[in-house]
Amino acid sequence: MPNVYAVIMAGGVGTRFWPRSREKTPKQLLEIVGKGTMIQNTVGRLRDLIDPRKIVIVTNKTQKQALVRQLPEIPLENILLEPVGRNTAPCIGLAAMYIRRFDPEAVMVVLPADHIMQDEEEFRRVLRLAIWVAEESGSLITVGIQPTRPETGYGYIQVRDDEDPGNPYFEKGVYHVRTFAEKPNLPTAYRFLESGDFLWNSGMFIWRVDAILREIQLLLPEMNEELLKIDDAFGTEKFEQVFDTAYRTIRGISIDYGVMEKAKSVYVIKGNFGWSDVGSWDEVMRLASKDEQGNSSNGKVFFHNSKNTYVHAGNKFVATVDVDNVIVIVTEDSVLVCKKDHSQDVKEVVDYLRRKQLNDYL
Amino acid sequence: MPNVYAVIMAGGVGTRFWPRSREKTPKQLLEIVGKGTMIQNTVGRLRDLIDPRKIVIVTNKTQKQALVRQLPEIPLENILLEPVGRNTAPCIGLAAMYIRRFDPEAVMVVLPADHIMQDEEEFRRVLRLAIWVAEESGSLITVGIQPTRPETGYGYIQVRDDEDPGNPYFEKGVYHVRTFAEKPNLPTAYRFLESGDFLWNSGMFIWRVDAILREIQLLLPEMNEELLKIDDAFGTEKFEQVFDTAYRTIRGISIDYGVMEKAKSVYVIKGNFGWSDVGSWDEVMRLASKDEQGNSSNGKVFFHNSKNTYVHAGNKFVATVDVDNVIVIVTEDSVLVCKKDHSQDVKEVVDYLRRKQLNDYL
Repeated sequence: MPNVYAVIMAGGVGTRFWPRSREKTPKQLLEIVGKGTMIQNTVGRLRDLIDPRKIVIVTNKTQKQALVRQLPEIPLENILLEPVGRNTAPCIGLAAMYIRRFDPEAVMVVLPADHIMQDEEEFRRVLRLAIWVAEESGSLITVGIQPTRPETGYGYIQVRDDEDPGNPYFEKGVYHVRTFAEKPNLPTAYRFLESGDFLWNSGMFIWRVDAILREIQLLLPEMNEELLKIDDAFGTEKFEQVFDTAYRTIRGISIDYGVMEKAKSVYVIKGNFGWSDVGSWDEVMRLASKDEQGNSSNGKVFFHNSKNTYVHAGNKFVATVDVDNVIVIVTEDSVLVCKKDHSQDVKEVVDYLRRKQLNDYL
Repeated sequence: MPNVYAVIMAGGVGTRFWPRSREKTPKQLLEIVGKGTMIQNTVGRLRDLIDPRKIVIVTNKTQKQALVRQLPEIPLENILLEPVGRNTAPCIGLAAMYIRRFDPEAVMVVLPADHIMQDEEEFRRVLRLAIWVAEESGSLITVGIQPTRPETGYGYIQVRDDEDPGNPYFEKGVYHVRTFAEKPNLPTAYRFLESGDFLWNSGMFIWRVDAILREIQLLLPEMNEELLKIDDAFGTEKFEQVFDTAYRTIRGISIDYGVMEKAKSVYVIKGNFGWSDVGSWDEVMRLASKDEQGNSSNGKVFFHNSKNTYVHAGNKFVATVDVDNVIVIVTEDSVLVCKKDHSQDVKEVVDYLRRKQLNDYL
């Protein structure tokens, strides 16, 4: 087994989970599905696969305190604080250079902090395979999820899964990429679903540190230059200032667009382990267990003649009377009542709070 | 002007206003419509008509503390505490005997604690007329409300408003009763509405103390006997015990059924002053001012793409997203989400709480 590090990207603000997600406690720091917070479960899922001392978390100052409290097993020095969010490519580059100090040939597994996998054993099997391929091939590996619905909220990856003579891993379900596709419209999403060779882009990556840094140097030279400044200043007095200035100088870009779509040797492994990015209250409702009327609750709740209703009661008592297709989220200071299948509009509430500077509720 | 007392009946538990109404703070002690609690407004409406020292309130131990705090102008001794609820007839008899100690010929105005009148000047004009007729005629007077919709939740009074030779007050809009009618079904309610001579029974009464006590003696002799025991014990050491025992012995009965429907000389005055018994959250919503989308709010509320929605936010922030025809009531410890026009079912929630002995929420 190669020397493996994990990098967990935990910078998101998760406005879609208002009123539970707040600036200081975004989605990844909340218990949204089942027991444990999303990031605790993301770390826990790596059990027996990656030593907690080799888990690196990239986040920001606002979230640091809650994160340290939730993850006492992660060394403090492994928690990297971005001065500002710049999308995934700089975040990954930063973490890669940090890990290079310990082992430039290590394999790094990059994971979002706020996804779930229902079949964790299968998830770990896929990671082990990916780590092995990444180590042996020096290629960039990503995990593609077999679509189960015509989702328009994700990017897609078309894979070469019919025949691929130059692919030594073909038999193991490891495929070359044919093309990356942006978030599709609904007819296109239906076409992707029917085609069978389009997978959801899960945002999980596996590669050797030297491999990804070589690609960044090649494909994002300006960013690479700023990251090198930060790396050079590491451990010196001027580090904080250099980090801040250089990182702010970087143009934000995703690793998908900046590297994956242009890199020469990219493999995709098909993942089939009940993945969800838990992107909205509707998705939480979809994942929740329901009673015969399609109701689902968390806390003290009484449904009277109600159906297809999801209630998160916080520490309150919630009663619904003769309602259907409603999502109700109650926190200490706020209440959201949202029509089912419309929870993407929750961001409108957050926009309103920002506009009105109602910062207490943000 | 005769010597006038008011009796305000404030014993109701108001389960229909859960989660705001609780055992210790039922509807009459809450600010439900506009400024001031319902009982404060009921007292305030008598300004310039009845001296606060002549206002008697019949309530119970549970509500006493909040009531005293809300109505500092009412003498403590005028707050009569029923040991147990026994409907309106005993409550009124008790108050009448209390007032008889001061003036057996006084006129007493009996009012529910939790109704509203939008035109208070007109309300006072009607009361003045009623007081004058009650004093002069010795008859029992009630106020009937001109119906504005086929309401099935009220009793009705049919009045003799076409011709009535034996009625000296006919020209002033004071009518003899033709018949009392129980709560009708919907077709009957439509017939009542169209007939023009059916009025809503408002539960307001005006009469001389000696007149109502004479009728109680005649029509409810058993009750009268128990009330006399209480009256005899007044001011003695054994009062508390006699009050408790005698009052519990009384069979509960309404003044309408026990007295009004059987008494010989009953007049009804037509009231047209924007009366409402504010019987449900739907009625509160009907009375509230609304924006162009039909939304109405109380507190910090953001409506996004919502319509016909009523929100009482308490001290929380409430956002509704893409919902319509919903009533949302938020208190310190509870949240109600109820479909509009279904708020009579709120009592099902209270039943549930009783069944489960969730007394903190009752």
